[in-house]
Amino acid sequence: MTAGDKILLAHGGGGRLTDELIHSVILPAFENQTLNKLTDSAEIRLGKDNICFTTDSYVVKPLFFNGGDIGKLAVCGTINDLAVAGAKPVALSLSLIIEEGLEISILKKILASAAQAAKEENISIVCGDTKVVEAGSADKIFINTSGVGLKLSKAEVGFEKIAAGDKIIVSGTIGDHGMTIMSQREGMKFESEMKSDCGSVAQICAKEIEVLDSDIKFMRDPTRGGLAATLSEISDQTDLGIEIQETQIPVNPTTQAAADMLGFDILNIANEGKVVIVVSGQKADECLEICKSCQNGKDAAIIGQIVKSSEPLVELITMIKGRRIVQMPYGRELPRIC
Amino acid sequence: MTAGDKILLAHGGGGRLTDELIHSVILPAFENQTLNKLTDSAEIRLGKDNICFTTDSYVVKPLFFNGGDIGKLAVCGTINDLAVAGAKPVALSLSLIIEEGLEISILKKILASAAQAAKEENISIVCGDTKVVEAGSADKIFINTSGVGLKLSKAEVGFEKIAAGDKIIVSGTIGDHGMTIMSQREGMKFESEMKSDCGSVAQICAKEIEVLDSDIKFMRDPTRGGLAATLSEISDQTDLGIEIQETQIPVNPTTQAAADMLGFDILNIANEGKVVIVVSGQKADECLEICKSCQNGKDAAIIGQIVKSSEPLVELITMIKGRRIVQMPYGRELPRIC
Repeated sequence: MTAGDKILLAHGGGGRLTDELIHSVILPAFENQTLNKLTDSAEIRLGKDNICFTTDSYVVKPLFFNGGDIGKLAVCGTINDLAVAGAKPVALSLSLIIEEGLEISILKKILASAAQAAKEENISIVCGDTKVVEAGSADKIFINTSGVGLKLSKAEVGFEKIAAGDKIIVSGTIGDHGMTIMSQREGMKFESEMKSDCGSVAQICAKEIEVLDSDIKFMRDPTRGGLAATLSEISDQTDLGIEIQETQIPVNPTTQAAADMLGFDILNIANEGKVVIVVSGQKADECLEICKSCQNGKDAAIIGQIVKSSEPLVELITMIKGRRIVQMPYGRELPRIC
Repeated sequence: MTAGDKILLAHGGGGRLTDELIHSVILPAFENQTLNKLTDSAEIRLGKDNICFTTDSYVVKPLFFNGGDIGKLAVCGTINDLAVAGAKPVALSLSLIIEEGLEISILKKILASAAQAAKEENISIVCGDTKVVEAGSADKIFINTSGVGLKLSKAEVGFEKIAAGDKIIVSGTIGDHGMTIMSQREGMKFESEMKSDCGSVAQICAKEIEVLDSDIKFMRDPTRGGLAATLSEISDQTDLGIEIQETQIPVNPTTQAAADMLGFDILNIANEGKVVIVVSGQKADECLEICKSCQNGKDAAIIGQIVKSSEPLVELITMIKGRRIVQMPYGRELPRIC
């Protein structure tokens, strides 16, 4: 980046520009091995245990959407970041930046929703902070949640565990969160209801690790940048290829219709209650059954596999058996999706 | 609070209105013992250890001020919240909400400053997040830092340890951060330079606990709401009175002049590199010497004591031996001070 460069909306989109900002500006400032790993949670030694620690700020617009709101999203999103790192989520912080003039009734609704989501996962919100800025200096409310969890002793997940022959599972239909938000912003209505998948994948992740331990190679919640960003990063970090089958990817038909109408590639659309799991080939069916037995995993599917490849690319095998390269999205598609 | 009520700037000022918002809206939503304690850091059991966990969002305006910037402030502020809770700070998260259009050179400067502050305290920034919102939906940049630390085994600090006869120490001159920010906003210039105290008190806190363990009854960094808010809360939570001597309170003359000119009570002004310590009467002199031996504590002073009282009030004994009641500030004085 050159002098005079400015931050663009796409720098926050979770795609190529976010990646560029992180690698050229953020990581060089802090230079440390833990941060450099860019995992969903940092794993650190604290006293006698390995703990996981993660943070996310939420700026979603609108604040309330079908299937959730910024409060539920902020709690589930951070729980998920701990869960996919192979940790048992234990406690969250909740920090509010509020625009002067926000109705207190709206704040109460958001907090009640955050509290409910935390309660359902048996997590306590143990510390917080409240800042207020002048009208016009923020957009209603932004929420940061950070979380700590205890690394599960059986968990051995990481890019370095992934090998050719591993299978890729997604825990349910993709794109529902992003398309719900976008349709709501555009004022679009559909005959069948579209609903964000905003929710927790902690149960799925814990059960997978409990039963399959080291056969679970990697887990990630495909949020900003969607499935495309998650798979691109796996390929990039492992130097391996990925093949996914279009026909196997679970998609809600209404979500697909919305994506088609608005001109989005469903693979790039954010999910907020899904996990992508890389599992050894021999345990893939078992992994799938575990997913399906969990509350938020009933539509899970095996969508592809890790392959040896001269070029580390993600390839989509289309319905008509064509091959399309799936790229890391640029990031401009969906500002303020989470 | 009644329906239709709205958030005011003063709800974020760290005074009476913040207190009211926390007690009437935030705590009831989450109802848990750890959060209810309202300590600077939450103490939780994680695996085999007691850890401290804290969060703060920073919205200071301007971003750069004499003595620091939002990056240094975000790192030192969260380190201080861990330190005053009797913990050794171990790791921080750093989450950015950036307004579209921010110059990347400014971001780099802020990150370099955050990194430098972390390095000086030997703390790693281990996880992060970056969100971007449209121009006009934030004010340049907001930073959240959360932190984890290991509770020092010798630390036994808490409101419940405080007793009549304990002495109150402040680690240096008060009001420097708040008045530097305000003067800069007002475009005021002084002959002698005014400088924010933005810095870490971790060394002071660790040394005090190490040497005096249970004689250190309570520590807090008097940020928003200043010394007045910290002392009011101590009195309120312990049901004990507090007497402080105006002549003993260290104040930088330029800071005092600025406060007088702008009509502020120096006791209400935010500090960002100070700690208030409540120590047993017999160890007060030793506590003071320890403070003075530390880099950021050389101007420390014993400013008063905890007293039995029929009413739990904070009283300032003025220069002319009058008595003035020090109240919890309302909170409107200094928006976006940290």
